[in-house]
Amino acid sequence: MSKPKVVILGAGYAGLVTARQLTKKLSQEEAEIVLINKHNYHYESTWLHEVAAGTLTPNQARFMISDVVNPNRVRLIYDTVLEVNKDDQRVVLENSEVTYDYLVIALGFVTNTFGIKGMEENAFFIQDIESSRLIAEHIEYQFAKYSAGEITDDDELNIIVGGGGFTGIEFVGELVEEVPRLCKKYDIPRNKVRIINVEAAPSILPMFDKDLVSYAIQSLESRGVEFRMGAAISECTKEGFIVGEDKELIKGGTVVWTGGVTGNPVLGKSGFEIVKGKVNVDADLRVQGEENIFALGDCSWVMDKESGRPYPPTGQLATQEGVVAAENIKALINNEPLKDFIFSDKGTVASLGVTDGIGNIFQGTKIKGKSAAAMKKVVDDRTLFLVGGPKTVLKKGKFRPF
Amino acid sequence: MSKPKVVILGAGYAGLVTARQLTKKLSQEEAEIVLINKHNYHYESTWLHEVAAGTLTPNQARFMISDVVNPNRVRLIYDTVLEVNKDDQRVVLENSEVTYDYLVIALGFVTNTFGIKGMEENAFFIQDIESSRLIAEHIEYQFAKYSAGEITDDDELNIIVGGGGFTGIEFVGELVEEVPRLCKKYDIPRNKVRIINVEAAPSILPMFDKDLVSYAIQSLESRGVEFRMGAAISECTKEGFIVGEDKELIKGGTVVWTGGVTGNPVLGKSGFEIVKGKVNVDADLRVQGEENIFALGDCSWVMDKESGRPYPPTGQLATQEGVVAAENIKALINNEPLKDFIFSDKGTVASLGVTDGIGNIFQGTKIKGKSAAAMKKVVDDRTLFLVGGPKTVLKKGKFRPF
Ligand SMILES: Cc1cc2nc3c(=O)[nH]c(=O)nc-3n(C[C@H](O)[C@H](O)[C@H](O)COP(=O)(O)OP(=O)(O)OC[C@H]3O[C@@H](n4cnc5c(N)ncnc54)[C@H](O)[C@@H]3O)c2cc1C
Ligand SMILES: Cc1cc2nc3c(=O)[nH]c(=O)nc-3n(C[C@H](O)[C@H](O)[C@H](O)COP(=O)(O)OP(=O)(O)OC[C@H]3O[C@@H](n4cnc5c(N)ncnc54)[C@H](O)[C@@H]3O)c2cc1C
Repeated sequence: MSKPKVVILGAGYAGLVTARQLTKKLSQEEAEIVLINKHNYHYESTWLHEVAAGTLTPNQARFMISDVVNPNRVRLIYDTVLEVNKDDQRVVLENSEVTYDYLVIALGFVTNTFGIKGMEENAFFIQDIESSRLIAEHIEYQFAKYSAGEITDDDELNIIVGGGGFTGIEFVGELVEEVPRLCKKYDIPRNKVRIINVEAAPSILPMFDKDLVSYAIQSLESRGVEFRMGAAISECTKEGFIVGEDKELIKGGTVVWTGGVTGNPVLGKSGFEIVKGKVNVDADLRVQGEENIFALGDCSWVMDKESGRPYPPTGQLATQEGVVAAENIKALINNEPLKDFIFSDKGTVASLGVTDGIGNIFQGTKIKGKSAAAMKKVVDDRTLFLVGGPKTVLKKGKFRPF
Repeated sequence: MSKPKVVILGAGYAGLVTARQLTKKLSQEEAEIVLINKHNYHYESTWLHEVAAGTLTPNQARFMISDVVNPNRVRLIYDTVLEVNKDDQRVVLENSEVTYDYLVIALGFVTNTFGIKGMEENAFFIQDIESSRLIAEHIEYQFAKYSAGEITDDDELNIIVGGGGFTGIEFVGELVEEVPRLCKKYDIPRNKVRIINVEAAPSILPMFDKDLVSYAIQSLESRGVEFRMGAAISECTKEGFIVGEDKELIKGGTVVWTGGVTGNPVLGKSGFEIVKGKVNVDADLRVQGEENIFALGDCSWVMDKESGRPYPPTGQLATQEGVVAAENIKALINNEPLKDFIFSDKGTVASLGVTDGIGNIFQGTKIKGKSAAAMKKVVDDRTLFLVGGPKTVLKKGKFRPF
């Protein structure tokens, strides 16, 4: 009898935690483990806004998968997943195919433009390392062109950000750090560069209380961010966003859309039933109606029985799911009962640049300012610890212990 | 009786040396000195190819003028010279006007496209700090776009360089250092990126002997530079250079023209008699027919009595002229006879990247390889010493003494 084969798609938060937990829970003899990821590195999705702003280098936000997963224990395949064939228990990759007994789908998110005209073609997305660093390079290139006189229109220096959610706000928070540095480097007066956040809803950051939100708005405005709330974007052109009923054009040389994400399109291509871009999973994290397929992180909806609504997709949720998925795979292999996933909310902290932030922690404690900024770094290091272990925290962590 | 007023236009090699020498030769009471420059910094023109390739940061190639010229002794005006009005002894700046008793024109070079169609619009130039760093930013942006899948045509990664003279060859020498670094950073195979040097003449670097030239060609080819010699560029389009009779298109995502320079166009606008883009000066460095106007460096032709042809324009020539111009201004003020300029040739060294080069030194000694590369750094530090003094060498020099 051959060993059961567990195949994990994606080495993000959920996939990497699942893989690392499985190596701890199962011996070499009990199961073969395969981890498939597009690149040979894992990156911190929750840090991508910093890469996009240029406040963090790509290398600080990623590490080699083989540094945190033993390649002798886990077969590492660096390839792009195209499709899952459930009937054959087979995964189609760009360059090969892999069969499985148990499958974990943890392929994360892609940006969702909601079909807004021109957005796909004309806006940048904060989606992965490459797309994020492209934004930083584009911004700097605009400054270089302006200082060399190749472009003269001040609007070309504007950075306009569609979406006032977590990513959009944390991104403008980084921009207020980076723009003054670029201004200095390129001898451009700071007041020539506008950072404009555009949001359709009447306010930003819907997950936070009113007073934290107004604190965030004031903090960012005082450092030069302009907010255009209640401004629905109907179209994105080469020049910028078209908003509102009078079709006002908000111009910018750098146009970034952070207004939404959805589950990886591999799900749809593979014939899973898609609900708002993701698949519904049962309490044990298996895809509804499937015996041997788990879907985690931004690829699935897990019902929160207390609120009656699915948990909001976060990195925190994804890592916690990884732990339970590994336990349940072990249970399946050993013919034991599976356990239900329950999310343990450690709170949410949004950064507003390096030294400011807002957050809800410990069920209801609100924090803001420097303590929130410090807490954010603790959260980031904690996540890093979960996916990469202590050595990775030492190498890439945001608090240097020495 | 008011003090005579000496106005120096340009704080490049020639202008900065003139200003510094004048402060040493003349007391505060003997003359008022004004130095006018576009920026508040001096940059090393001879290092711009490194800035353009990205192997040197702009800050390493420039320093504040007020760090090397005492602002209490020399009035420093940071503005752009538009025109000299000889009849009124007046210089028109973008934001003001300045009168003079003695004038030194040291405004350097601009790139010369020789009217090649499309070159002005579509090619980058290595002309000053801004235009050079724009090239480095553009190259990196191409890599970022390629790695993010925004451009897919491999030709977009090509860097094509028009001109096989000093600047063009030193530039490709830096590119062979930088491209592998960018390839690594952006996970792009080195062989996808072509560096192509295009030269109309049958060979490159006309100032060097045949054997040094073939050494240079072999060295650069072995590190991945392609040469297209005997390929006259008839047009530059958005896609690249069109060469030869069959109108072949050499494609590149980064197109740089280094094929020629000429004197600053302020000369022509001011009504001086222009010969091949510059003005002829007498042996005492005064503009022919003018009593009180000197033209130095890349703005003038100085006849070499031995060869019967003007000295080739170099940084070395410019600095030496600065010394003599200062002496002759002092002589004019004191009603003493002026002296003739004689160029003392210290030799010429071209770098081929960080660890290779070719050169002629000490009247006829040929060097190549590591010793030429080392000598090049000595030359660079020597020039830096002449324009900036010992402290500047310590801060920006290419050999760290510790
Ligand atoms: C800028 C930003 C800031 C955020 N801030 C926070 C925060 O502060 N707190 C928080 O909890 N959440 C935050 N989030 C949300 C959080 O990042 C996501 O919920 C989390 O990344 C989901 O984890 P995951 O494991 O599902 O996917 P990911 O961690 O995104 O991993 C997906 C992996 O799959 C790989 N992959 C994708 N497609 C393929 C394919 N076809 N083939 C092979 N491999 C593939 C990817 O390369 C990646 O390694 C933020 C998100 C963003 C974008
Ligand atoms: C890439 C490169 C490599 C080179 N390598 C060598 C080498 O190895 N050895 C060598 O001897 N020579 C070399 N040269 C040539 C050398 O750089 C020039 O001959 C030298 O710079 C001429 O000095 P200059 O004082 O005339 O002008 P520059 O040193 O160029 O200075 C001109 C100054 O005038 C200022 N200016 C220009 N226009 C205006 C305006 N309208 N108003 C106000 N200010 C203005 C500029 O900002 C600048 O500060 C190289 C040139 C290049 C481009």
